[in-house]
Amino acid sequence: MEKKFVKEVTAMDEDFAQWYTDIVTKADLVDYSSVRGSMIIRPYGYALWENIKGALDRRIKETGHENVYMPLFIPESLLQREKDHIEGFAPEVAWVTHGGTEKLEERLCVRPTSEVLFCEHYKKIIHSFRDLPKLYNQWSNVVRWEKTTRPFLRTLEFLWQEGHTAHATDEDALEETVKMLNVYGEIAENYLAIPVIKGQKTEKEKFAGAKLTYTIESLMHDGKALQTATSHHFGDGFAKAFGIQYTDQNGELQYVHQTSWGFTTRVIGAMIMVHGDDRGLIIPPKVAPTEVMIIPVAQHKEGVLDHAYELKEKLSNTFRVGIDASDKKPGWKYNEYEMKGVPLRLEVGPKDIEKNQVVLVRRDTGEKLFVPNEELEVKITTLLEEIQQSLYDNAKKKMEAKTHVEKDYDSFKKTFKENQGFVKAMWCGDQACEEKIKEETGVTSRCIPFEQENLDENCVCCGRKAKHMVYWAKAY
Amino acid sequence: MEKKFVKEVTAMDEDFAQWYTDIVTKADLVDYSSVRGSMIIRPYGYALWENIKGALDRRIKETGHENVYMPLFIPESLLQREKDHIEGFAPEVAWVTHGGTEKLEERLCVRPTSEVLFCEHYKKIIHSFRDLPKLYNQWSNVVRWEKTTRPFLRTLEFLWQEGHTAHATDEDALEETVKMLNVYGEIAENYLAIPVIKGQKTEKEKFAGAKLTYTIESLMHDGKALQTATSHHFGDGFAKAFGIQYTDQNGELQYVHQTSWGFTTRVIGAMIMVHGDDRGLIIPPKVAPTEVMIIPVAQHKEGVLDHAYELKEKLSNTFRVGIDASDKKPGWKYNEYEMKGVPLRLEVGPKDIEKNQVVLVRRDTGEKLFVPNEELEVKITTLLEEIQQSLYDNAKKKMEAKTHVEKDYDSFKKTFKENQGFVKAMWCGDQACEEKIKEETGVTSRCIPFEQENLDENCVCCGRKAKHMVYWAKAY
Repeated sequence: MEKKFVKEVTAMDEDFAQWYTDIVTKADLVDYSSVRGSMIIRPYGYALWENIKGALDRRIKETGHENVYMPLFIPESLLQREKDHIEGFAPEVAWVTHGGTEKLEERLCVRPTSEVLFCEHYKKIIHSFRDLPKLYNQWSNVVRWEKTTRPFLRTLEFLWQEGHTAHATDEDALEETVKMLNVYGEIAENYLAIPVIKGQKTEKEKFAGAKLTYTIESLMHDGKALQTATSHHFGDGFAKAFGIQYTDQNGELQYVHQTSWGFTTRVIGAMIMVHGDDRGLIIPPKVAPTEVMIIPVAQHKEGVLDHAYELKEKLSNTFRVGIDASDKKPGWKYNEYEMKGVPLRLEVGPKDIEKNQVVLVRRDTGEKLFVPNEELEVKITTLLEEIQQSLYDNAKKKMEAKTHVEKDYDSFKKTFKENQGFVKAMWCGDQACEEKIKEETGVTSRCIPFEQENLDENCVCCGRKAKHMVYWAKAY
Repeated sequence: MEKKFVKEVTAMDEDFAQWYTDIVTKADLVDYSSVRGSMIIRPYGYALWENIKGALDRRIKETGHENVYMPLFIPESLLQREKDHIEGFAPEVAWVTHGGTEKLEERLCVRPTSEVLFCEHYKKIIHSFRDLPKLYNQWSNVVRWEKTTRPFLRTLEFLWQEGHTAHATDEDALEETVKMLNVYGEIAENYLAIPVIKGQKTEKEKFAGAKLTYTIESLMHDGKALQTATSHHFGDGFAKAFGIQYTDQNGELQYVHQTSWGFTTRVIGAMIMVHGDDRGLIIPPKVAPTEVMIIPVAQHKEGVLDHAYELKEKLSNTFRVGIDASDKKPGWKYNEYEMKGVPLRLEVGPKDIEKNQVVLVRRDTGEKLFVPNEELEVKITTLLEEIQQSLYDNAKKKMEAKTHVEKDYDSFKKTFKENQGFVKAMWCGDQACEEKIKEETGVTSRCIPFEQENLDENCVCCGRKAKHMVYWAKAY
């Protein structure tokens, strides 16, 4: 019994959460298993991740970093070495207590992040200023014991890269923190077509053990914000907890200054919620597993399939091309690859062959173009660039349209009651205001953006003198 | 205080185990941490793994497989679904019993391998003959609770790929099993320059839950064998345990037939023990993180460093090139990159610049060549090919020299007392003989090679009628 091609999706403006769940499963990105809160990343989802990972890994290497691999397990005593860090992570780690039939003398935690392992290693291998900087990165899986999970956005296990660096001075470490945040911004904006706000997390929202945390924040279709990637400056906090010292040019012992930065499978969730529509995914060409999907029309007619396969062969030199020559009806195929967000569909049938042309259909706009064969490669190149740019521009427009400025607390609350989105508002810097806002509205400070604007003199919450402009939003 | 460059290595023929330990740490491949039995793969080691992984991943994709990602954890009840499988793996899995502060209702095992997860998923997504074959692969970490560990060879956690496929017929699955064994053979022989013996594992040595296991076996410098990669044919055993059925062309329900195959970081250990010498690693060019290391001579003299960097720039278009312009003495640098097994050293000093030449030194033979600049790229290309081939040829010669034929049990035992290596000998097929041999000599059956020779009529152990020729050896 063949499965029917029935893929109904909840309308996004009706129930966005359900729309998201429909999309990730029906576009074959993920599946569930009997492992609570974990996801199976299916071939289409994993190919997408491989493209994103490839682009980021190149940039990580170009900026002088080297890949390494640290152990999955962390002995409990090692995790406890830095106080803020263990306080932040202890509630959400998985504990291994038995190996085979034997009870372990010391519990092992499954890494939620690997700062302490890098610190232990750095203590061993850093001796002199000549050993600095150490610019390491690792691609790995990590586990955080989350209660409520959603594919990509919050899962018990996820895939990521975590950079961990050690520097001679605080300034060097700070520079690194900014540099890698900018690399994340590049990947988000230029590859995933997701516009981001760059800024600093407040004390309340920063990473456990960090001196400061930088973040890129983006806005989803439903107006909720998503922390898309973060970069942390540790100062010498970890270095002191672990005793990581080097001898400087004057023969004096100094502590190193450290950073860490992470980028996860979560961005796939962001990509879905920024670009998707009621017909499914829309994947930016630069990371699309398939850029062009060929659908032969009237493929039973002589010469059609041969011609379609020749096209595939030819175009595959330049683009990531697929072909669906299955016996499903073309209309079903159209739905399938719209659901999967393939940027361009290429239809070719007997009439097109006769006219020496093909039909190209854009996933983002639905626009249909008749393209002569001799112009095909140039046209596809141009179209893919246009789609990439247009996805970014539209997302940016949407984000701007959903970004409000508020100066008093009543309108601040009213805005979040009526709309979602970013609110730019001034803040006194007092954590009490942040907590009050969160309690009364569910809204959190997303970041203190690098690009500050002096919107007002006073804090939107308490009315005291303002220190920073902050982006506020409800967040994933 | 700068660390002195002192890297003494135990002679390999004096204490091979110690030599190995010296090499893996002093060539900066790995380091130890406080996580028992796990290794830190350092930048040089990881770059090597990335090259091996890249080559294998290309072949896996070229042969039609798709990458996916399955969860790290397996619920205990799921692991128990296939009886032989759980019996084989239960003694060596790590158990997660707590998430955060909460005790779990059901223990989770950290995957030692992922058959059961793939089976659960296949049951969900396979319905019709149209869904077959499913050709999935994943790159991941796995954990096996080993008592005695050694970097790369046997570690508590290791990195690997595991392919898991489902087919309509037993023949299709068998064909896949052979195909992927051949891919492993290609990677071992053509990339790692390790000659292998291909064959089938005996019943005693096959994978837990498999109908049959194919293996590539190789011989280390000390004459001990290493199981380098395996490919398993499951028949419909797992399919029946998990109820994975499809509707065939006649509308009848059939069980699928499955395979799995794995290739791990262990091959790095094999590469070290096949090619290394008393001065350190020797890495085959095709997987070497650096193919050519430039060492400027008298680098304080005007123009030398500029010239060296220009050379690096130019050669980097074609080769993986490094340069060491640190203030260490050239002799120390020579030792360093010999230790690291860089295939070619390129020396260039004022006299060479004058003569419009460089000096190339082969790591494998020590041969020194004076090469005019205009011939440099062609010469390097040829030399790298020669080194690659020569490493393979020498390893093959060594393996053949250490492969003996024995027809009676006394000489069989004598050979293993006096030498290590492979012994080819006939076997009746009775597990009792295998066990007797293992008990009395520590020797195991490595495989029943595909290339059979009829050496004798009788089993080397019991003298009864022989069924197969077997490769025997002490093994890692």
